[in-house]
Amino acid sequence: MSMKTIERLILYRRILERLQAEGVAHVYSHELAERANNTPAQVRRDLMVMGCSGSSKSGYLIKDTLVSIGEVLDRGGDHGIALVGVGNLGRAVLSYFSCQQPRFRIKAAFDSDSTKVDRVISGCRCHHVADFGSKVSELGVTLGIITVPAQHAQSVADMMVDAGIRGVLNFAPAPLRVPDSVFIDQIDITMCLEKVAYFARLDDAEERE
Amino acid sequence: MSMKTIERLILYRRILERLQAEGVAHVYSHELAERANNTPAQVRRDLMVMGCSGSSKSGYLIKDTLVSIGEVLDRGGDHGIALVGVGNLGRAVLSYFSCQQPRFRIKAAFDSDSTKVDRVISGCRCHHVADFGSKVSELGVTLGIITVPAQHAQSVADMMVDAGIRGVLNFAPAPLRVPDSVFIDQIDITMCLEKVAYFARLDDAEERE
Repeated sequence: MSMKTIERLILYRRILERLQAEGVAHVYSHELAERANNTPAQVRRDLMVMGCSGSSKSGYLIKDTLVSIGEVLDRGGDHGIALVGVGNLGRAVLSYFSCQQPRFRIKAAFDSDSTKVDRVISGCRCHHVADFGSKVSELGVTLGIITVPAQHAQSVADMMVDAGIRGVLNFAPAPLRVPDSVFIDQIDITMCLEKVAYFARLDDAEERE
Repeated sequence: MSMKTIERLILYRRILERLQAEGVAHVYSHELAERANNTPAQVRRDLMVMGCSGSSKSGYLIKDTLVSIGEVLDRGGDHGIALVGVGNLGRAVLSYFSCQQPRFRIKAAFDSDSTKVDRVISGCRCHHVADFGSKVSELGVTLGIITVPAQHAQSVADMMVDAGIRGVLNFAPAPLRVPDSVFIDQIDITMCLEKVAYFARLDDAEERE
């Protein structure tokens, strides 16, 4: 499925899980669309692709829809995650994920600073970055998170690729190159804030089109 | 300018600042394009719009190009920034920005937990969220960062809009609605990791198109 479809499915799942926790059992496409900033037609298309059908009387059964979305998003089971760069940003990301669902627990953290090695930092054991390859195969890690300074980010990405990492989430403010066989996404917090600062000055939403 | 153009200018500035720090004075469009994962033609178009012209002999003068980009991105001067929600994620974002450039310092943090009020947390003074409106006008804050749990995010966004905030960066995993006159961007860390986890399982980059 396309990136955009997957992004929408992830969002639908989150919304449906919240509704379910509130005791709601059914949802109409227009309700889901409104919460996802989307159109009812798009919601119906996305859910139809997964074989979900709603009834015109009561909409979609949330429980079944969540199962269908999970079959798409979670096939292949859990991933092990490793984080490289236990500085300010790395600790922040570690402590953020330490309170997330089990499927997003970080299994190991790595740093080149030997004073951090063998300590438990923000709930995660820290290893020396020289041991990355061996630890990754020992722990079955397939996803990597990069939280090192920009100038070291590409060499960390290269190391991850060499160790067999299949997906990378890069928080370093640097665009990175990886082979086509590896998926990479970037979260650049400062760039987002610069964008917000720029567009906050404009008086008219139309200037942003 | 369009969102995409502004995103590229922010990236060019970051790359050019790094090159300048390394002592480089000139850059060719193909060099800048390669670092920005872009095409030389796109780089030339973007820089031409700002009145920058390169020479075929030595490329663009980095110093002048940075001035031109700054005139676009920084017009209107510095923004004051306020953060609401001093939990795990809020502390992480505060400590991240406390080591950033002065134009991204957070002026005040807010929480509904009175045990946090009047304390300095991750380098920033925390106020009670009930004082948001008065503090925002006192400190000249125009940008807001939301780091509260998802179920409180929309009411915090509404409060920010009422207080005259012009731009919002939302870290809460919930899509928010604001008036057209307010610009909002979202960073959803868990959603990014879910996306990486999904695409890391695919064997072929073409499946992601």
